[in-house]
Amino acid sequence: MANEIGIGFLGMGNVGETVVATLLERAATFRERTGASLSLRRVAVKDPSRARGIDLPGGVLTGDGAEVIGDPSVDIVVEVIGGDGAAGDYVRAALAAGKHVVTANKELIAKAGPELFDLARANGAALRFEASVGGGIPVITPLLRDLPANRVLAIRAIINGTTNFILTNMAQRGESFEDALAQAQELGYAEPDPTNDVDGHDAAFKIAIMAGLGFGTHVPPEAVATEGIRSLAPQDFQYARELGYVIKLLAIAERHEEGVLARVHPALLPESEPLARVDGVLNAAQVRGDLAGTLTFQGAGAGAAPTTSAVLADVLDVARALAEGSQPRWDPGAWRYGEALGLGMLETRYYLRMTVRDQPGVLAQIARVLGEAQVSIAAVEQRETDEERGTAELALMTHRARELAVTGAIETLRDLPEVRAVDAMLRVEAAT
Amino acid sequence: MANEIGIGFLGMGNVGETVVATLLERAATFRERTGASLSLRRVAVKDPSRARGIDLPGGVLTGDGAEVIGDPSVDIVVEVIGGDGAAGDYVRAALAAGKHVVTANKELIAKAGPELFDLARANGAALRFEASVGGGIPVITPLLRDLPANRVLAIRAIINGTTNFILTNMAQRGESFEDALAQAQELGYAEPDPTNDVDGHDAAFKIAIMAGLGFGTHVPPEAVATEGIRSLAPQDFQYARELGYVIKLLAIAERHEEGVLARVHPALLPESEPLARVDGVLNAAQVRGDLAGTLTFQGAGAGAAPTTSAVLADVLDVARALAEGSQPRWDPGAWRYGEALGLGMLETRYYLRMTVRDQPGVLAQIARVLGEAQVSIAAVEQRETDEERGTAELALMTHRARELAVTGAIETLRDLPEVRAVDAMLRVEAAT
Repeated sequence: MANEIGIGFLGMGNVGETVVATLLERAATFRERTGASLSLRRVAVKDPSRARGIDLPGGVLTGDGAEVIGDPSVDIVVEVIGGDGAAGDYVRAALAAGKHVVTANKELIAKAGPELFDLARANGAALRFEASVGGGIPVITPLLRDLPANRVLAIRAIINGTTNFILTNMAQRGESFEDALAQAQELGYAEPDPTNDVDGHDAAFKIAIMAGLGFGTHVPPEAVATEGIRSLAPQDFQYARELGYVIKLLAIAERHEEGVLARVHPALLPESEPLARVDGVLNAAQVRGDLAGTLTFQGAGAGAAPTTSAVLADVLDVARALAEGSQPRWDPGAWRYGEALGLGMLETRYYLRMTVRDQPGVLAQIARVLGEAQVSIAAVEQRETDEERGTAELALMTHRARELAVTGAIETLRDLPEVRAVDAMLRVEAAT
Repeated sequence: MANEIGIGFLGMGNVGETVVATLLERAATFRERTGASLSLRRVAVKDPSRARGIDLPGGVLTGDGAEVIGDPSVDIVVEVIGGDGAAGDYVRAALAAGKHVVTANKELIAKAGPELFDLARANGAALRFEASVGGGIPVITPLLRDLPANRVLAIRAIINGTTNFILTNMAQRGESFEDALAQAQELGYAEPDPTNDVDGHDAAFKIAIMAGLGFGTHVPPEAVATEGIRSLAPQDFQYARELGYVIKLLAIAERHEEGVLARVHPALLPESEPLARVDGVLNAAQVRGDLAGTLTFQGAGAGAAPTTSAVLADVLDVARALAEGSQPRWDPGAWRYGEALGLGMLETRYYLRMTVRDQPGVLAQIARVLGEAQVSIAAVEQRETDEERGTAELALMTHRARELAVTGAIETLRDLPEVRAVDAMLRVEAAT
């Protein structure tokens, strides 16, 4: 039993400052809730001389992360540096030293999860990471704590606020990708270099973690089939709406007989689906269990305050166990190295948009190519004829087809003299 | 550390059978997840000679609950009898004997929560009740485990599937309450005596529990201001739609300076709200925390399989702690006996529907009465004139007003010779 629990920080950006400020402000409440005083011991930052947004107790700041880890009065290390460089080394060192670690680091957990869990287990330490996915929305805990009796069948999420903000503006205002991105950057929702978000990498880290927890199978981020949103055009949103769909960047993981298929790509989602109404910077995750059915968790997926809510949930839970004299280990289970499947095995409906020569017989040619690939057409729209260039735009929706058949047919279509370009290919996500 | 953990059951209805069947079928998985074998030891039922839907191991059935509680090989008692009669006595006896208890009993926890938590604490026992609210949707755990750093500001939920099914059919098909109820009964969604659901009592138990967890204040169910859905008429749904609202039976608990206001009543909810799209037997709960913002949890709020998911989440969590040699106590904190507020202090917009004499000057009279009570009118619709009776129907929406002012004005309106009846008064729930 501990009456006082020492907390150390690695990193002190926006989130770190909010976590520390909340720890200091709510000390009395947290003592009541955990049974122990949470005491801020050490904070490692790159430049200890830089001015901070909060007043830290004297002598707490250091420029050396090893001092936080090596301080015997630090029981819980909160890592808010991010990335898998220095942060990874510090987290490994902290766990090896038997410190309990709370992290918001999605990249590190997605890449090195199984190794870190083994390290934590071997050293009697807890490794907690609720804040790594979904900001303030509980998604890690539900997968581990609330659904253990279920066979998890599928996870489907809108888990990147930047891209959801951009897609919402493209859908509601008819903006181009470039304009919507510029606005997101202006508002601070997108980084100056937006690659990590708009190319789907951030979402891939997050679905890799969720897939690991849900299926007990390690899905390394590079095994997540990942497509971003750069190629989407305003007319895709119009066609989608006319067909009764919205376009969302979805992160999906499904259990198949052969293994786990994890993917991140923009998809057409029926308007009636709960996820279709998750707009702007909101996030939402759906988990389908064989007992619980489909559960949807929705809220703010980013921001300093929501992330603080998640970081402190983990800190307080570990602290409560320590205060009671219990082991705060909270085991995410052994992740098997299972088969990660590719998109080739997917079977769904597909939306295609292409630029074609504006002349009779073109649609017949396209239908013939698709038909020979066993892909049948469910709906077609042709419009926006460009008289000068003699081209027209054609959008079509297929019936259910195999991904390999569709991508093969697209290759053939690209060789047709009548087809100038296949501009977009989007998968349709069926209703839950 | 325990290698084998004994489970006993009190009651064996639909839910109990599904829980037991799942325990038996998934024994190997659960052993892997908890580190111990979960062994079914005793099952107490009213009539042990009656045929069951599942094959129980020989010698397990008994007609006497005391045998389950008294069996020294039973570590965890699962109570699925329901109600606060015999079930309450058994749960008290089990806790007093130091058994860990998992229950789905909302009535018992709502009424006797603080007493039972004290009893559990005093005897080193865990008392878990995730299944008591929201079926398979995690709502208890998030309040306790995921939001401890937050100051919870408000809870708002659609937490009774029967009434939500009835209201959805009234809205979508224009059915009367009686027809929609009959259909719900036919489909098994409503009991032959539907009082507990349609008069709001079931939802009151659930919001009382959530208010206790969220605010640390005991709100006895009788302190929840409770109105049912019997008086709603099809035209209320039409007027609501024209005004941009849906009608839902909401369970709400809010923190005010003076105390906690908990209430269950049908309310007009803006169509754009996430809860407005929770239809049929679905449930959803929204929790607003000062750090996390508004979180929405949605899913199947009832049914044997979802409830089993929640019961077993608690059982497996307790079992895992026992297997590790930790204390599975999981303390919902001390509930203070705070001030439970009445509806009189509410301030919101109101929808009124009345039957009036079809003659000039009536609206002026009504506006005068409301105005004298400081209630101003935001919108009015008059229609469905009944020429034979010389009456017309009038629906109006007020601006924000005090509940006491509105109920006072309604009393005055009822005395006007021009007003035949005030048929409906519904509160408007603002956007989150």
